[in-house]
Amino acid sequence: MKLWGGRFSYASSKSMRAFCDSIGFDRRLQLVDVRASMAYAHALQRCGCISVAERDALLGGLERIRQELKDGQFAFNEDDEDIHTAVERRLTELIGPVAGKLHTGRSRNDQVATDLRLYLMEQIPCLDEALSALQLAVVDTARQHLDVLMPGYTHLQPAQPLLFSHWLMSFFWRFQRDRERLADARKRTAVMPLGSGAIAGHPFGLERRQLARELGFDAPAQNSVDAVSDRDFVVEVLAWATLVQVHLSGLAEDLIIWSSREFGFVTLDERLTTGSSLMPQKRNPDVLELIRAKTGRLGGDLLAMLTVLKGLPSGYSKDLQEDKEALFDALDTLAAELPLATEVVRTLRVNGVRMAAALDAGMLSTDLADYLVRKGVPFRESHRIVGTAVRLAEKRGVQLSDLDLAQYQRIDDRFEQDLQEVFDFQASVDRRSALGGTARSAVEAQISQALQLLRAEGGSG
Amino acid sequence: MKLWGGRFSYASSKSMRAFCDSIGFDRRLQLVDVRASMAYAHALQRCGCISVAERDALLGGLERIRQELKDGQFAFNEDDEDIHTAVERRLTELIGPVAGKLHTGRSRNDQVATDLRLYLMEQIPCLDEALSALQLAVVDTARQHLDVLMPGYTHLQPAQPLLFSHWLMSFFWRFQRDRERLADARKRTAVMPLGSGAIAGHPFGLERRQLARELGFDAPAQNSVDAVSDRDFVVEVLAWATLVQVHLSGLAEDLIIWSSREFGFVTLDERLTTGSSLMPQKRNPDVLELIRAKTGRLGGDLLAMLTVLKGLPSGYSKDLQEDKEALFDALDTLAAELPLATEVVRTLRVNGVRMAAALDAGMLSTDLADYLVRKGVPFRESHRIVGTAVRLAEKRGVQLSDLDLAQYQRIDDRFEQDLQEVFDFQASVDRRSALGGTARSAVEAQISQALQLLRAEGGSG
Amino acid sequence: MKLWGGRFSYASSKSMRAFCDSIGFDRRLQLVDVRASMAYAHALQRCGCISVAERDALLGGLERIRQELKDGQFAFNEDDEDIHTAVERRLTELIGPVAGKLHTGRSRNDQVATDLRLYLMEQIPCLDEALSALQLAVVDTARQHLDVLMPGYTHLQPAQPLLFSHWLMSFFWRFQRDRERLADARKRTAVMPLGSGAIAGHPFGLERRQLARELGFDAPAQNSVDAVSDRDFVVEVLAWATLVQVHLSGLAEDLIIWSSREFGFVTLDERLTTGSSLMPQKRNPDVLELIRAKTGRLGGDLLAMLTVLKGLPSGYSKDLQEDKEALFDALDTLAAELPLATEVVRTLRVNGVRMAAALDAGMLSTDLADYLVRKGVPFRESHRIVGTAVRLAEKRGVQLSDLDLAQYQRIDDRFEQDLQEVFDFQASVDRRSALGGTARSAVEAQISQALQLLRAEGGSG
Amino acid sequence: MKLWGGRFSYASSKSMRAFCDSIGFDRRLQLVDVRASMAYAHALQRCGCISVAERDALLGGLERIRQELKDGQFAFNEDDEDIHTAVERRLTELIGPVAGKLHTGRSRNDQVATDLRLYLMEQIPCLDEALSALQLAVVDTARQHLDVLMPGYTHLQPAQPLLFSHWLMSFFWRFQRDRERLADARKRTAVMPLGSGAIAGHPFGLERRQLARELGFDAPAQNSVDAVSDRDFVVEVLAWATLVQVHLSGLAEDLIIWSSREFGFVTLDERLTTGSSLMPQKRNPDVLELIRAKTGRLGGDLLAMLTVLKGLPSGYSKDLQEDKEALFDALDTLAAELPLATEVVRTLRVNGVRMAAALDAGMLSTDLADYLVRKGVPFRESHRIVGTAVRLAEKRGVQLSDLDLAQYQRIDDRFEQDLQEVFDFQASVDRRSALGGTARSAVEAQISQALQLLRAEGGSG
Repeated sequence: MKLWGGRFSYASSKSMRAFCDSIGFDRRLQLVDVRASMAYAHALQRCGCISVAERDALLGGLERIRQELKDGQFAFNEDDEDIHTAVERRLTELIGPVAGKLHTGRSRNDQVATDLRLYLMEQIPCLDEALSALQLAVVDTARQHLDVLMPGYTHLQPAQPLLFSHWLMSFFWRFQRDRERLADARKRTAVMPLGSGAIAGHPFGLERRQLARELGFDAPAQNSVDAVSDRDFVVEVLAWATLVQVHLSGLAEDLIIWSSREFGFVTLDERLTTGSSLMPQKRNPDVLELIRAKTGRLGGDLLAMLTVLKGLPSGYSKDLQEDKEALFDALDTLAAELPLATEVVRTLRVNGVRMAAALDAGMLSTDLADYLVRKGVPFRESHRIVGTAVRLAEKRGVQLSDLDLAQYQRIDDRFEQDLQEVFDFQASVDRRSALGGTARSAVEAQISQALQLLRAEGGSG
Repeated sequence: MKLWGGRFSYASSKSMRAFCDSIGFDRRLQLVDVRASMAYAHALQRCGCISVAERDALLGGLERIRQELKDGQFAFNEDDEDIHTAVERRLTELIGPVAGKLHTGRSRNDQVATDLRLYLMEQIPCLDEALSALQLAVVDTARQHLDVLMPGYTHLQPAQPLLFSHWLMSFFWRFQRDRERLADARKRTAVMPLGSGAIAGHPFGLERRQLARELGFDAPAQNSVDAVSDRDFVVEVLAWATLVQVHLSGLAEDLIIWSSREFGFVTLDERLTTGSSLMPQKRNPDVLELIRAKTGRLGGDLLAMLTVLKGLPSGYSKDLQEDKEALFDALDTLAAELPLATEVVRTLRVNGVRMAAALDAGMLSTDLADYLVRKGVPFRESHRIVGTAVRLAEKRGVQLSDLDLAQYQRIDDRFEQDLQEVFDFQASVDRRSALGGTARSAVEAQISQALQLLRAEGGSG
Repeated sequence: MKLWGGRFSYASSKSMRAFCDSIGFDRRLQLVDVRASMAYAHALQRCGCISVAERDALLGGLERIRQELKDGQFAFNEDDEDIHTAVERRLTELIGPVAGKLHTGRSRNDQVATDLRLYLMEQIPCLDEALSALQLAVVDTARQHLDVLMPGYTHLQPAQPLLFSHWLMSFFWRFQRDRERLADARKRTAVMPLGSGAIAGHPFGLERRQLARELGFDAPAQNSVDAVSDRDFVVEVLAWATLVQVHLSGLAEDLIIWSSREFGFVTLDERLTTGSSLMPQKRNPDVLELIRAKTGRLGGDLLAMLTVLKGLPSGYSKDLQEDKEALFDALDTLAAELPLATEVVRTLRVNGVRMAAALDAGMLSTDLADYLVRKGVPFRESHRIVGTAVRLAEKRGVQLSDLDLAQYQRIDDRFEQDLQEVFDFQASVDRRSALGGTARSAVEAQISQALQLLRAEGGSG
Repeated sequence: MKLWGGRFSYASSKSMRAFCDSIGFDRRLQLVDVRASMAYAHALQRCGCISVAERDALLGGLERIRQELKDGQFAFNEDDEDIHTAVERRLTELIGPVAGKLHTGRSRNDQVATDLRLYLMEQIPCLDEALSALQLAVVDTARQHLDVLMPGYTHLQPAQPLLFSHWLMSFFWRFQRDRERLADARKRTAVMPLGSGAIAGHPFGLERRQLARELGFDAPAQNSVDAVSDRDFVVEVLAWATLVQVHLSGLAEDLIIWSSREFGFVTLDERLTTGSSLMPQKRNPDVLELIRAKTGRLGGDLLAMLTVLKGLPSGYSKDLQEDKEALFDALDTLAAELPLATEVVRTLRVNGVRMAAALDAGMLSTDLADYLVRKGVPFRESHRIVGTAVRLAEKRGVQLSDLDLAQYQRIDDRFEQDLQEVFDFQASVDRRSALGGTARSAVEAQISQALQLLRAEGGSG
């Protein structure tokens, strides 16, 4: 069944149908399509377009379709070009010509935009929950390892000692921003196009505010031309998803490098690694590699949508049909990935001994400079002095802490007996106690703050 | 001057310097760099790192640098690899070794991230204002043309009659969403990295909340590892900018097509068109074409940043230096473009006569179907009936309104004498009076709503 | 069956399997996988790894698998993580432990790269053929309309008269470049990884040159580290596909605008348009809009792959598994789209009368300037003179050709009696007879050249 | 000076000029612009458009401009909107009205496309040379370290022993493909648009074949509509550049990881590292990180251009002006980067001792399986047997080579006395002597082959 055949003398070609039809990927809108239609039937009756009896006939038929869909009993026809057509076709089979009243004042343009938003509004709380589950895994794992020291890296070169938990908590905040962005994107998703018709608005005085409320939207769209073609919410969710992916790729990269034999800081749970078809000894972090790689996929989805929208004339164009596969791909990817990332974090074996062994006195150079600062030396000067010590130690092939006081004093006479106190990794960490620092006290405060955020939020839905 | 030379025995190569230095593009951070340093000097004194006298020396030197920068008197050295180095070098020249105290507990990692955020926090209100000026031009132009009817298009095919003002107002809402997104992005920009050091936090008990307040941030960053490498705000602003561009490209596309000789709906102000080096008669919409094209540029900036961030290990990496050119390019593009778009809208000549002439009875087909709906015919059936009429008119080479009642009645006997009332474009428009529709009353309500929003907002800053 | 289970104590989790397995999309490699294995069995025997009897056992089993796959009788197991595993599992069922000899010296790393290249080498001639079919449609349609004049546009503003066929032939050359690029990409696809093992090469003296020849490759890869992770050919084909798409989107855009009611230059075959669910009169160029939109999709695939590859360490990483879906999506899109584009061109109704009516004298301004050039006036001066005439005509609301000689002579006295000869569209076209110009003679030469190219090429495969 | 002012009554606004003018970035086309104009003057004379004296006047003026440009004496005006205007303006100053004859039959549309191609044709041999210099550095470094063994990695996990030189040579082939692609792209760059006018071709019978030859093009463009808007060559070069970048990013990633303290396989020359403003001990691989990051930038340039071209109508549109900055940015980036990458490779300190120490017996698991294969055990079975041994060794906390024969025989009785011969890294490497493998003999053959390629190629220009 086609919804638009009246004026046409020919059937469209089969290859064109295959190219244009969306039934292959828009079936997942089936339940929201029925839900939107039920609410619309109520609204049509309220504005006098249909009678109570007609409304009830429509509702009865739609309810039956809903059941069929839920039970997997709904039979799709070869001619159903999209989910809206399929539902209307079935409704006609079930309740006869009165089914034809449901499309009064409605176009697929406003219908599909409404469906897609409703679908997304259902997905957003799930995604938010998956993100918060990952955050909780981060917090739990961080709490369990508060006594583990590790090298902090910049440029992948040893920089300063860190608490392992401090490193891990850095991801909590990335995901927290992701959740805030998701909540923001939701605001612009929860705007209802229904009642905009094809482009010009609704000709039967539909009360759109009530309809919006009933469907769970925050408000109806304010301009019908905009409403039928606005896909900002798709772009916004894709940009959000890509940024989540960027964060996940960072976590994956850290863990891939740290689970290399050379670093050996963490061991992935065996269940989350795979072997090699050729090399019997291999244990590969495939999951993490795929997580890293999916960033390309989601960035591609984002770019695809932006390119589609570039230079598109106002009013609905078929180009917009490309919104769905990109969006679904991104949602599905994250839905599969977030629980795996959570599992990775939860089952991570942290090799504190290897981490401790990787600390070296060079990482305390800044502390050494700070030692001089405390004695009144301007930092820039102390930085230079310590640079000289570093060079000396390197030349001698020893650690900074292996130079003796005399050697230090030959470099600068403000080095004193208390110098040795600098070479204490735990003390170095604990000095960074300002808000956001790696000191245990600061990390504990971070964790408290994080738990409070996790508790406070009922999700962004 | 290099800030990090102590341990190095060789100077870096010239080509490496040219490749790595950022002074070529980060100069625009100069004033925020000084501002951040002044606030930092205060904070260092408050936490006991420096004395009041030292602080005052620093402030005096920084103030003088600020003046030099403002007056264009600041002399950059060939050796200044970035703006931070240049300022510290000059400070040393001005006040001697005490200048070296300013970097206490600070790294360029937290410094540059702080500067970039401060810079952006200054730009955001300007961008918001440029957007609202464009919105105001839209509203003003819409108000002046409330009596202009035009064809509404979907698929670039005539769909239904619209008020020109309704079409134009559709852009108001796109830019309104852009402004909301900008305000949302600002929240995540206004988070202060300063006090995070290179990666591990501040070792001298810096009070970061007060410092954040003084610099106009909403809050300090909660985790130093995250703080030095978080570029989410850059991505978010680039995604925002690309979406603004998408909207501008849509406006440009509409106007390019409508100012074609064949449509002739609008005429661009001559000052906003250009001629041809070969063809003397040409008047080309170059501005609009460039606006359309810039979508590629900004999407490219967005993608560039996302690609840089993909799979980057935690902690600062030099890769992050690529954030600035992409961001500045996007900001500059919009800063140049938005006033031009505003000028285009304000000076647009609307050719109401051409628009009216382009209305044809076929665009009332939906109204014709609705006519039958009002007589109780289910919409789907009436759609088919009207389709038959359309085909008949086409076959006879006449307009729908040229078929006589008898012909209509041969198609369906529910057509009656009152049929002719359908063929009234103004009435068609006015029937779409539901919220968001094209009826004059609905458009006036839209405009009121828009003006209220413009008045209410003191900007997103 | 897993190919790598030996050292593992646990089964991998179900969600991990769902995330990591590629069987969902790599089944289309099934026949090339079997083909590559058969050739590999021969090569193993030749280098003495297996006996002739073992080889024949392998070949027998593989042949049966090939039949099963062809007949749709091959039963996949839930445990088949990819197509290679499935085939080896089935081979073991069919011929017992000797099946385990097939993987000697082979890794899935070199195997999958080989399969993907073989698959692509099969697709490339099909794509080339689809492109040349489109070219032929272009040429045929161009030949049939050699007498149709139309306005040529730059900036969507009327520029100069053109032959319709000249415009159409402009696409021939775009697709010609696409075919050349495809042939170039093929060269880098037809390089065989097989015999590279996991990363280090083949330990049993495999003769790779002969094997390459037998499989239809041009040559074996020269370095095993490169061979297992080289996905340049995927990027190159995706970049190629995106550029094809850009060309198709340009054709679509032209035809969408020209089939608008306002231009009315072409009419799409009804079978290639669709209607509206709400507006009975609509006939929408959905196919063309989707063709235009797919540019986003393919650009997204390209970007996805580039992002995956960015910063990837040497040697195979699981990230590379993301190559397949992007590539297949691009190939499938073009395979569906090119025949439709061909159909669009072949069935296009060219409205020569509308095109002729759209020619106006302003489009001859350059000819008018050239007229003066022929009288010795420097072009830049004649351009200015004609500009004055254009302004005068515009002011009077008449066409350039409506100004009389006296008026022209008041502007410049070098205008003479023969001026009227300028105002002849056909003559204007015919003057542009230099190679590549729009004169009929030049277009006919173009078409000859095109036909020669089409005949000469036996495809890029 | 504007080339198109005749019909306009107003000057364009300053902000519009700033937005539309290209003089800010197209100056680098100055010399090719003059060169093309000189050849065009000759061609105009040959087809009778201008006299010999006029031609000589033009040539004289142009030659003087060329000198002024070379000497930096050319004075740009504020009104020069692009380089073509600037040159024509100056020519008029120098030789008077006859300068106006140069633009006869030429449009900026064909002129700018010609200039851009000529510019690129000059750059391509430089880029090719920079690539081959990098290749030579790779070969030289590989030759010097033929006795260095290292672990080969897949999934960043130890896989099999490799020659360091084999790993390094893997990059030779990537750059070789890049050079082939560049040569392919050159073919499509070397096609001359000049003589296509604005869109319709040349009206004065210009002989374009000879003109093309004189300018170094392979051929004139075959269709004027295509010629003025074809930017395929820009896309192709940007795609090429992005892929070069992907290869460089892979090299950078390998070296960043390998120069980490934990791997310690290589040490970057100090001159190619930088320090930290805070941490005196740091030596950061900034150059490599920026090289890695530039992949985003070039991918962004590519995407920008693709997006600009998507859905662009035929004939020149101003959108195309966005081609230049993207292209120049990509060329400049590579021009700066390739010599640095070459320097990195040439000055790399290879720590063979650390590499040797990182070899462990687990990396010989495949060799162990192959040992059984040589005794007739099917590989799949031997893979499983070795997996069991790996597990046993892991359980006991020893290396595979530490298990004694008895233990092996308890696993499988086909293990025999000669087992110990397996545990020899050099032997493992040398077994992989098939073409493309890591055996010294195969790597030496690779290097010979590479040197031959380097010698054979006179560049792609």
